[in-house]
Amino acid sequence: MLKSILRGLYRHKSSLASENCITTIKSVNSYRITLSDPKTRNTLSIAALQRLIEEIKIAGDDLSLKSIVICANGPVFSAGHNLKELSIPENQKTVFSLATKLMNTMIECPIPIIACVDGVAAASGCQLVAASDMAICSNRSSFSTPGVNLGLFCSTPGIPLSRVVSKKTAAYMLFTGTSINAEEALRTGLVSKVVQPEELDNEITTLTTLIGQKSRSVITLGKTFFYKQIDENIKSAYKNGEKIMLSNLELNDCKEGLLSFVEKRKPNWSN
Amino acid sequence: MLKSILRGLYRHKSSLASENCITTIKSVNSYRITLSDPKTRNTLSIAALQRLIEEIKIAGDDLSLKSIVICANGPVFSAGHNLKELSIPENQKTVFSLATKLMNTMIECPIPIIACVDGVAAASGCQLVAASDMAICSNRSSFSTPGVNLGLFCSTPGIPLSRVVSKKTAAYMLFTGTSINAEEALRTGLVSKVVQPEELDNEITTLTTLIGQKSRSVITLGKTFFYKQIDENIKSAYKNGEKIMLSNLELNDCKEGLLSFVEKRKPNWSN
Amino acid sequence: MLKSILRGLYRHKSSLASENCITTIKSVNSYRITLSDPKTRNTLSIAALQRLIEEIKIAGDDLSLKSIVICANGPVFSAGHNLKELSIPENQKTVFSLATKLMNTMIECPIPIIACVDGVAAASGCQLVAASDMAICSNRSSFSTPGVNLGLFCSTPGIPLSRVVSKKTAAYMLFTGTSINAEEALRTGLVSKVVQPEELDNEITTLTTLIGQKSRSVITLGKTFFYKQIDENIKSAYKNGEKIMLSNLELNDCKEGLLSFVEKRKPNWSN
Repeated sequence: MLKSILRGLYRHKSSLASENCITTIKSVNSYRITLSDPKTRNTLSIAALQRLIEEIKIAGDDLSLKSIVICANGPVFSAGHNLKELSIPENQKTVFSLATKLMNTMIECPIPIIACVDGVAAASGCQLVAASDMAICSNRSSFSTPGVNLGLFCSTPGIPLSRVVSKKTAAYMLFTGTSINAEEALRTGLVSKVVQPEELDNEITTLTTLIGQKSRSVITLGKTFFYKQIDENIKSAYKNGEKIMLSNLELNDCKEGLLSFVEKRKPNWSN
Repeated sequence: MLKSILRGLYRHKSSLASENCITTIKSVNSYRITLSDPKTRNTLSIAALQRLIEEIKIAGDDLSLKSIVICANGPVFSAGHNLKELSIPENQKTVFSLATKLMNTMIECPIPIIACVDGVAAASGCQLVAASDMAICSNRSSFSTPGVNLGLFCSTPGIPLSRVVSKKTAAYMLFTGTSINAEEALRTGLVSKVVQPEELDNEITTLTTLIGQKSRSVITLGKTFFYKQIDENIKSAYKNGEKIMLSNLELNDCKEGLLSFVEKRKPNWSN
Repeated sequence: MLKSILRGLYRHKSSLASENCITTIKSVNSYRITLSDPKTRNTLSIAALQRLIEEIKIAGDDLSLKSIVICANGPVFSAGHNLKELSIPENQKTVFSLATKLMNTMIECPIPIIACVDGVAAASGCQLVAASDMAICSNRSSFSTPGVNLGLFCSTPGIPLSRVVSKKTAAYMLFTGTSINAEEALRTGLVSKVVQPEELDNEITTLTTLIGQKSRSVITLGKTFFYKQIDENIKSAYKNGEKIMLSNLELNDCKEGLLSFVEKRKPNWSN
């Protein structure tokens, strides 16, 4: 009886801990998802993966939102999957199935996702950055795919990584397990801007404010097509691009946008 | 009667204006196409698109030419499609059909196309740069895909852009609508060289002179295969590359080239 | 009779020369392949291509090895194919068939290949660098694809080149035949690090030591999947990545790696 009560309490505590591993806040039209389990180095535990998927879906479904920011508490953005969890065979399928689901959820999310890194992004933590639509970081950040050190090659982190950084840098990171710093991340395309740690918040506000001024329906059309065309051969992409431009012109917000241009006033989006 | 005469005059003037939106000059074996409608910020109007397609075809068919340079008069390289035209529904299909045709014409053009930018390249103006085989710019140039600001996402500019710059930078440009400067364009691969504005002409002359020394038939074989292989998986590309090297060796100009090497003299191309 | 003896001697000498065009040395768990025919500017002659393929296979089959380094003696890393050989029609098919075989052998090699460049890498010499998994170079190195100068467009070098450097830089190199320097090679992704010539050996030792600490079976799994996924569309890649992570977890060295992590000790690979 006592045992059962204790088990219940433990479960409750554990589920609270899971809940708390990710915190969210809505600020104007941007949704900030914070990895907030610094004592585990923000590992992407099963709970964290589930919460990330859930929160990205919530934000994607909220028509008042126009962007998502993924950031973290503490000096480690994310150390990747939870290795203690991964050591238990029963968890393995769940972890990697959730990781795939997270990647697909990010691609399918109708609004852009911005990774905001101030610290260490390792393994699937680095994958999260590479898979985001945009990424900025502080100059004290670093990025690595060190799975090979423990015998678990960062094959899935390598998927978005090899699509954003140069093949040589991706291979260097994957085979040596060592880090690249912020400057190298910028040079090789993993982030599009590096700032001082104290400027990171301002930079994110600038970015989300800029995106916040656009029409949500237009952003969604744009993101959806961006991922569609990038895997096509270039001539098919142009052919489909022609169609998407015409569909875009049918959107109310595009009609309003062009009208506002002719009338020299600010557009008034219906989103 | 007078009305009809006036209409005739107007048409004539308008068609002259269309003709004049693009000027061309042949210099040795390079064809320079200049966007020369600075009062419209060199918009890629229907007339301009038609002229660009036409002129690229003319240059492609002229066996004495070995390269095309696309440059512009005024501080704006090109502001993209003509939004007044685009506001008229009847024009929309025409505009984007011509834009696709322009992209395909550039890919299929048998000689390389060099974008030479000294100023603002926006929307389909930026697309024109991204779609060129080579691009250089002055240090006061900037590049943007601001369609999202008016509700018309730069989906087609995103096609060549995401194939030359890093995915993160492409997304940043497409979702925020803000510019990158010349230095960022160089870092991220949109241009391969940045020079002072006053050095731009010399740089283009150097480039076209270098290309002008090659065999035209060899250049054409090379460009055609370059676009073919880039969309293939790497092993198919190597297999087809083997065949193309053997075809290349069958060209008279390759036989002459190898002979000139053995005989330690300049090659004498039949082109 | 004398003629026949002399021919025999000549053949023997020539075959020795062929053997010597490539030297190899095994150092701990890395295999160093040195292009050592500086008097021919380390041309990738038929003999050299055959030896490279052979040596990469030998190293790939040696389970005690974890990396291959390709370097060169003399100021030219490699000047590319042997043009005297290529001038003889009978050789042409052989040369390009071997070149394709070399590329496939590099991709299929179960351990990573690192190009270590201190000098000029031209034509298929540049291709060798671009096709390596990793590449570092000294600051006095340069890279070019000058085949177009002799009427033989560097179509096959363009295949790996256009997959590692930006399209604009690849086109610039291929159409002009001119070199990029070490700094440009770094910026555009052809190498992942540039060092002083005297630091090159240390840098390679650091790199091969790092890779030497990993499990060979894990490295092989990682490299194989890296090349598989890079040609897939991103969603298929993630789906297959999920499977490969689960296969990786089944490897003995992964079980050992995760156990060593939990037990806070160094892993003891069975390789």
